[in-house]
Amino acid sequence: MTERRLLLLNGPNLNLLGSREPEIYGSTTLAQIEENTRSVAVEFGFDLRALQSNHEGELVDAIQAARADCAGIILNPAAYTHTSVAIRDALAGVELPVVEVHLSNVARREEFRQHSYVSGVADAVIAGAGALGYEFAVRYLADRIGS
Amino acid sequence: MTERRLLLLNGPNLNLLGSREPEIYGSTTLAQIEENTRSVAVEFGFDLRALQSNHEGELVDAIQAARADCAGIILNPAAYTHTSVAIRDALAGVELPVVEVHLSNVARREEFRQHSYVSGVADAVIAGAGALGYEFAVRYLADRIGS
Amino acid sequence: MTERRLLLLNGPNLNLLGSREPEIYGSTTLAQIEENTRSVAVEFGFDLRALQSNHEGELVDAIQAARADCAGIILNPAAYTHTSVAIRDALAGVELPVVEVHLSNVARREEFRQHSYVSGVADAVIAGAGALGYEFAVRYLADRIGS
Amino acid sequence: MTERRLLLLNGPNLNLLGSREPEIYGSTTLAQIEENTRSVAVEFGFDLRALQSNHEGELVDAIQAARADCAGIILNPAAYTHTSVAIRDALAGVELPVVEVHLSNVARREEFRQHSYVSGVADAVIAGAGALGYEFAVRYLADRIGS
Amino acid sequence: MTERRLLLLNGPNLNLLGSREPEIYGSTTLAQIEENTRSVAVEFGFDLRALQSNHEGELVDAIQAARADCAGIILNPAAYTHTSVAIRDALAGVELPVVEVHLSNVARREEFRQHSYVSGVADAVIAGAGALGYEFAVRYLADRIGS
Amino acid sequence: MTERRLLLLNGPNLNLLGSREPEIYGSTTLAQIEENTRSVAVEFGFDLRALQSNHEGELVDAIQAARADCAGIILNPAAYTHTSVAIRDALAGVELPVVEVHLSNVARREEFRQHSYVSGVADAVIAGAGALGYEFAVRYLADRIGS
Amino acid sequence: MTERRLLLLNGPNLNLLGSREPEIYGSTTLAQIEENTRSVAVEFGFDLRALQSNHEGELVDAIQAARADCAGIILNPAAYTHTSVAIRDALAGVELPVVEVHLSNVARREEFRQHSYVSGVADAVIAGAGALGYEFAVRYLADRIGS
Amino acid sequence: MTERRLLLLNGPNLNLLGSREPEIYGSTTLAQIEENTRSVAVEFGFDLRALQSNHEGELVDAIQAARADCAGIILNPAAYTHTSVAIRDALAGVELPVVEVHLSNVARREEFRQHSYVSGVADAVIAGAGALGYEFAVRYLADRIGS
Amino acid sequence: MTERRLLLLNGPNLNLLGSREPEIYGSTTLAQIEENTRSVAVEFGFDLRALQSNHEGELVDAIQAARADCAGIILNPAAYTHTSVAIRDALAGVELPVVEVHLSNVARREEFRQHSYVSGVADAVIAGAGALGYEFAVRYLADRIGS
Amino acid sequence: MTERRLLLLNGPNLNLLGSREPEIYGSTTLAQIEENTRSVAVEFGFDLRALQSNHEGELVDAIQAARADCAGIILNPAAYTHTSVAIRDALAGVELPVVEVHLSNVARREEFRQHSYVSGVADAVIAGAGALGYEFAVRYLADRIGS
Amino acid sequence: MTERRLLLLNGPNLNLLGSREPEIYGSTTLAQIEENTRSVAVEFGFDLRALQSNHEGELVDAIQAARADCAGIILNPAAYTHTSVAIRDALAGVELPVVEVHLSNVARREEFRQHSYVSGVADAVIAGAGALGYEFAVRYLADRIGS
Amino acid sequence: MTERRLLLLNGPNLNLLGSREPEIYGSTTLAQIEENTRSVAVEFGFDLRALQSNHEGELVDAIQAARADCAGIILNPAAYTHTSVAIRDALAGVELPVVEVHLSNVARREEFRQHSYVSGVADAVIAGAGALGYEFAVRYLADRIGS
Repeated sequence: MTERRLLLLNGPNLNLLGSREPEIYGSTTLAQIEENTRSVAVEFGFDLRALQSNHEGELVDAIQAARADCAGIILNPAAYTHTSVAIRDALAGVELPVVEVHLSNVARREEFRQHSYVSGVADAVIAGAGALGYEFAVRYLADRIGS
Repeated sequence: MTERRLLLLNGPNLNLLGSREPEIYGSTTLAQIEENTRSVAVEFGFDLRALQSNHEGELVDAIQAARADCAGIILNPAAYTHTSVAIRDALAGVELPVVEVHLSNVARREEFRQHSYVSGVADAVIAGAGALGYEFAVRYLADRIGS
Repeated sequence: MTERRLLLLNGPNLNLLGSREPEIYGSTTLAQIEENTRSVAVEFGFDLRALQSNHEGELVDAIQAARADCAGIILNPAAYTHTSVAIRDALAGVELPVVEVHLSNVARREEFRQHSYVSGVADAVIAGAGALGYEFAVRYLADRIGS
Repeated sequence: MTERRLLLLNGPNLNLLGSREPEIYGSTTLAQIEENTRSVAVEFGFDLRALQSNHEGELVDAIQAARADCAGIILNPAAYTHTSVAIRDALAGVELPVVEVHLSNVARREEFRQHSYVSGVADAVIAGAGALGYEFAVRYLADRIGS
Repeated sequence: MTERRLLLLNGPNLNLLGSREPEIYGSTTLAQIEENTRSVAVEFGFDLRALQSNHEGELVDAIQAARADCAGIILNPAAYTHTSVAIRDALAGVELPVVEVHLSNVARREEFRQHSYVSGVADAVIAGAGALGYEFAVRYLADRIGS
Repeated sequence: MTERRLLLLNGPNLNLLGSREPEIYGSTTLAQIEENTRSVAVEFGFDLRALQSNHEGELVDAIQAARADCAGIILNPAAYTHTSVAIRDALAGVELPVVEVHLSNVARREEFRQHSYVSGVADAVIAGAGALGYEFAVRYLADRIGS
Repeated sequence: MTERRLLLLNGPNLNLLGSREPEIYGSTTLAQIEENTRSVAVEFGFDLRALQSNHEGELVDAIQAARADCAGIILNPAAYTHTSVAIRDALAGVELPVVEVHLSNVARREEFRQHSYVSGVADAVIAGAGALGYEFAVRYLADRIGS
Repeated sequence: MTERRLLLLNGPNLNLLGSREPEIYGSTTLAQIEENTRSVAVEFGFDLRALQSNHEGELVDAIQAARADCAGIILNPAAYTHTSVAIRDALAGVELPVVEVHLSNVARREEFRQHSYVSGVADAVIAGAGALGYEFAVRYLADRIGS
Repeated sequence: MTERRLLLLNGPNLNLLGSREPEIYGSTTLAQIEENTRSVAVEFGFDLRALQSNHEGELVDAIQAARADCAGIILNPAAYTHTSVAIRDALAGVELPVVEVHLSNVARREEFRQHSYVSGVADAVIAGAGALGYEFAVRYLADRIGS
Repeated sequence: MTERRLLLLNGPNLNLLGSREPEIYGSTTLAQIEENTRSVAVEFGFDLRALQSNHEGELVDAIQAARADCAGIILNPAAYTHTSVAIRDALAGVELPVVEVHLSNVARREEFRQHSYVSGVADAVIAGAGALGYEFAVRYLADRIGS
Repeated sequence: MTERRLLLLNGPNLNLLGSREPEIYGSTTLAQIEENTRSVAVEFGFDLRALQSNHEGELVDAIQAARADCAGIILNPAAYTHTSVAIRDALAGVELPVVEVHLSNVARREEFRQHSYVSGVADAVIAGAGALGYEFAVRYLADRIGS
Repeated sequence: MTERRLLLLNGPNLNLLGSREPEIYGSTTLAQIEENTRSVAVEFGFDLRALQSNHEGELVDAIQAARADCAGIILNPAAYTHTSVAIRDALAGVELPVVEVHLSNVARREEFRQHSYVSGVADAVIAGAGALGYEFAVRYLADRIGS
């Protein structure tokens, strides 16, 4: 029987959501995003394990742990999008379907945000759709994993 | 009263969908995609005008025409993603919400496909979610435009 | 006897002039620009054939046709400035004097607008002078072609 | 039974052959090239469908149409060599043998002509052999396709 | 009351005009250019202060001085176009309308002449129109400043 | 009432100060630097909270925490200067005045040390002044924050 | 008396060895590698302290700690090879002989894996020799440190 | 006996301080900066010789002259920061301690302002601290030179 | 009387043809290629001198010697295509018509194979046509040299 | 029965070992290295054929010859590491296991020594281990080839 | 009658010769160099006009003046080698034979010293021969100009 | 007693001197250059050993041999200037004074000729002085070596 759990990972500074640079990231808080994503996951028959960390190593640990009991990963790598080969390698190592989510459209931001180490190992990438992006990620994984 | 019509534009060679390089683009045909997208649009109270063209100029014409009677644009620019400033300028000129959709995850393909002229003027970008990406685009625009 | 006709070509999205991004392109419409340019041309004893197109191929066709009955070309290639080798080759092929005109000062815009394929085959380049740039182009060609 | 027809496509400004920059392109006209290529094709038992267009989209359309009734494609993409991903994608989509022909040796021309989007999906590339290049293309395709 | 004086600045080696590399710069002398430009300026009700210098610092000094008594600046920075941030900063500091003029079409010359530090702070840029470029600059400033 | 506390953050390997590569970093220990900086801070009526960490995530955590009770940040990001977008984003998120300090003049070191992710969100940058740089940072913040 | 202990450090995701992407990394587990390396070390009269971590900061901490009681370092930095200046600085700071080991031949992998921040401060680099690389590292250090 | 005089050099356009682009450079005038810097210098027992010039050569002359009677140099090279190898070579030639000062944080400005020819031969670099930067420079030199 | 001899040069590792990497180079041996090329040459009234060498210097020597008694050169420079300026200079020095032949379509191979030092001094370039490419080279030279 | 012979190839200037730049390459002579490597090879039941050449072509010849009677190749390509595609192609052609050895750690030397054409076709790469690197190469090949 | 005078120009900081960085520039003073160069010039029947300046504009002025009464120019542009297009343009404008001299071998110095704007318009370039370089320049010009 | 012999090495294609591309290389033959250089060498009390080769390896061999019985090397590396690290390493290994000579001013030729691997290990570089460059090389070495 396939695992019916999704891992929702949010990277550095996303715990500040709602207060930090709202003109870029919007006013929704991380707690709201996790709650909403869980609701959609449940609709599709999935549990959701949610984690936010500012520590690259903790994100790597969490991705590795997902091999044991998750069916897919939703990851907003935030700043580590552009600098972490370790997260990329962890994702490649667990061999689960992965959706990379960004709240803002990174294509409209600084040059150094135009490259993602994660996209090359993700299945789908959703940027600029705000909090809805997480919902879309659940829908994609549900469709991909089946029931 | 806000227009309740969305423009769905598909760029060059997407008329071959279902037969061309299925290992990259999947086996769904363009007609199916347009039909499915229309269904979702209707759910949210939108008409859908669908157009596919291999001609950059026709895509520009269609985007310009949307100013008159559409509330949002869903665009899969295909090959023109990487080479068309004209499409970018047309999108910037019409000032409607725009979602850029790619069937495959372009980050996993050739280096020259890593740059999009369109992303810089799009609101959201969805890649690698296959035909579901168009559905997500409708959902995003419905949320953005409201009712 | 030398032909006394000038070709005035405007590229993609310039049909939107007056409404599209007026903070960049000003509020003069394309019709006004064509009219004003014709007036100045007539002062110098020239007919003016004016064409706007969003289609690269149509611009190439029009340039080729100018070989038969025009004495000079005024071209605002707009987005195709940065992406069209075909227009460059057409201009090189017809061997008429060419003035490249841009309404805005492209040097103040995005990095990808800093390169022009057209400038290398143009005789003169005028940028940032707004609608006056077209008048200057006529004056230059009149001086160059003589009477 | 294999189709016994070849598609001969010539890109933008090649309709000017014989008059445009003869020091680069020689004095043979396009009509002569098409006639000569047809003669050689017939020798090898092939029909030839010849098309020249200044429009990128028409070239894409013609390549797509070749899937139905051609056995191979001879393409001189001219200026679109360096700028058209759409033509590249069309060629990849039809999965026919393709020969890319250039009249002049592009390696001796401007830096921006040193890169071809087409070569990566062509089977053979012939440059600098003038009108003979088209003959060689037929011979290559005849050998490849067999009888 | 607005100042009715324009500053005409010519950069290094332009004092050689008429003798130096005439195939690039033409045979008109600097004195003739200054005289012609003054005539056009007078037509539009402007005085003209003309200065040529081979010294970057003197050009900076002259630009700064224009703040006190000029309404616009016509500048052919010549070699300093490509190397002087100091002139750029001076122009940004005086906050007057600026037209950058080049006698030749720099786009047809060496690679290192393709970048201008001045264009980013100029209002209009005119290249390749020969001595007429200065006349156009006066016309532009007259239109911009009004009467 | 404004908080009267400054955060002094030192990045990876700065705990080795005094013993590691003294020809680059000098012989002062980190404890001495923290003590001296506190003394100067106290002179200006500030508390000082000092932290050194080799962990990028801990530095991010500490920066975020400063929002609650600090008035300014003095940061020597050391190796993370060149690799951490996460620290940059944290600094941008807390919206406090920030001074970036480097003991050595990084401009004299390896090429990869010439770029700082932090400088773009810092208010002032001081490099090469040794331990005095921290004192200057306090003075700058005192002046900026006022009393 | 010289310390007779070596530090064996393995970076992120190497705890997955044996299961993760075996076509790249082989089927030997990390425990086996640590055991084998210890055996060889003992042959040469060395203790071995082995640590694996996904956390950049823990690797830095461990390198710093080696100054007190180790005679050499064997490091497979894995993903941090390409992104960690902090590990480089730590190695430079401890001034012990260092061998950089990679299981696979990184020269055959992605472009971004072609640069190592660590190599510039390592004494020897061994790549592609699989688990044998660690044995060679011990032999090198034994030879270098002497007995 | 060591010379007790500092040279304070300000480069092009800094004579406009207080009026030019105050949102970047602040409202303090150059005279005030020179006066304040002299006061701090006197506190530490130094004379101050102050010079501003828009001429690269005059700055070089002044640096060379400092060899005879100064103990240190405070230099805000302004625009010449990015373009003058001559000033760099002069500084290298006089072999006095040098502090490079910038009023604004250049890291937040245009790309071409990210490189300094001067930093490679300066001892310390202070940017973004406004007029305080000059005070810090005096303090650094006083500490360095001793009494 | 014009010499009626062609030089056929094959560069390093082409002696392995038929056994080395047949998926790239095909199964025809070098002896067969030389024989076939000679047959075609004889048809057109030419002798053929064939040489293969792994030594850059021998290829240079052979090209120089062709000045005395050959009318044209067919060269497959293999690996030296990308690294030998000496062969380029030899070809430029002998001033004979030159055809550069590659068995495979180099545009589909590694990035470093995308540049040819030879193409800039060759008259025609034929790639990807397999052993037929040599035949085409003879036909081109026969046409060029005449009879 | 598998061949029990290894080829040991040393590239240009390695015949100077022991006298040339000993601070980089150490004081061991090439004869000693060949002798030591042979001893280790014999331990593992291998013959060793040793060759040093300053001629790229001779190295290519030797690699090709190894196909007939060797089971593996140990190659220190020295200067040809960075410039020889011919050696790379020869190695790819013979399809034997290859170890690339460098006496010094090339990562610590000039920028142009950071790229190896050979590494992409080698199985293992060992740098900076001095003469021990050759011993490790034998051990690796023995393990790989088996007995 | 040809002018029998040479212009010897030395650029910025060369007045410090003999004292500044003698490990790079040697201990000969500028006065000695000018004297020695004059002696050699006289041997060949030439006057010598010698000038050193730290001002780019003065060097341009001096080059322009040479048109009237000099037969050749010997120029050590020092720092302006790498930054002055104005000097390049002046040299191109005067159309006299030019020898560029550098005391040190610039190829062994910083990366930014590897490019010379002057070399492209010089006839000969001599670097690293110390003061002898000036003597060689006179000999070259004497040979070139004749008697 | 110091050796009184110089090695004169000329690289590939220089045996064609006098006939090959005389507009670049002049009409003097290699035999004349060797004779003239010998004459000047004899004047200064030196023997001259002259060698020309098209083979990189032979040039390396000759440089190595010079260690035994030469006091200096004059080298025109021709095409190998830009591609041979082996020659560079040989020169570095023999530790004799080296002058790099080019007949033409390479700065005026193709981009790929702007980089020399040899200059970084040469003492002096002379380009564009034609055959005189060899004479200057002898004079430099005579001065350097003394008598």
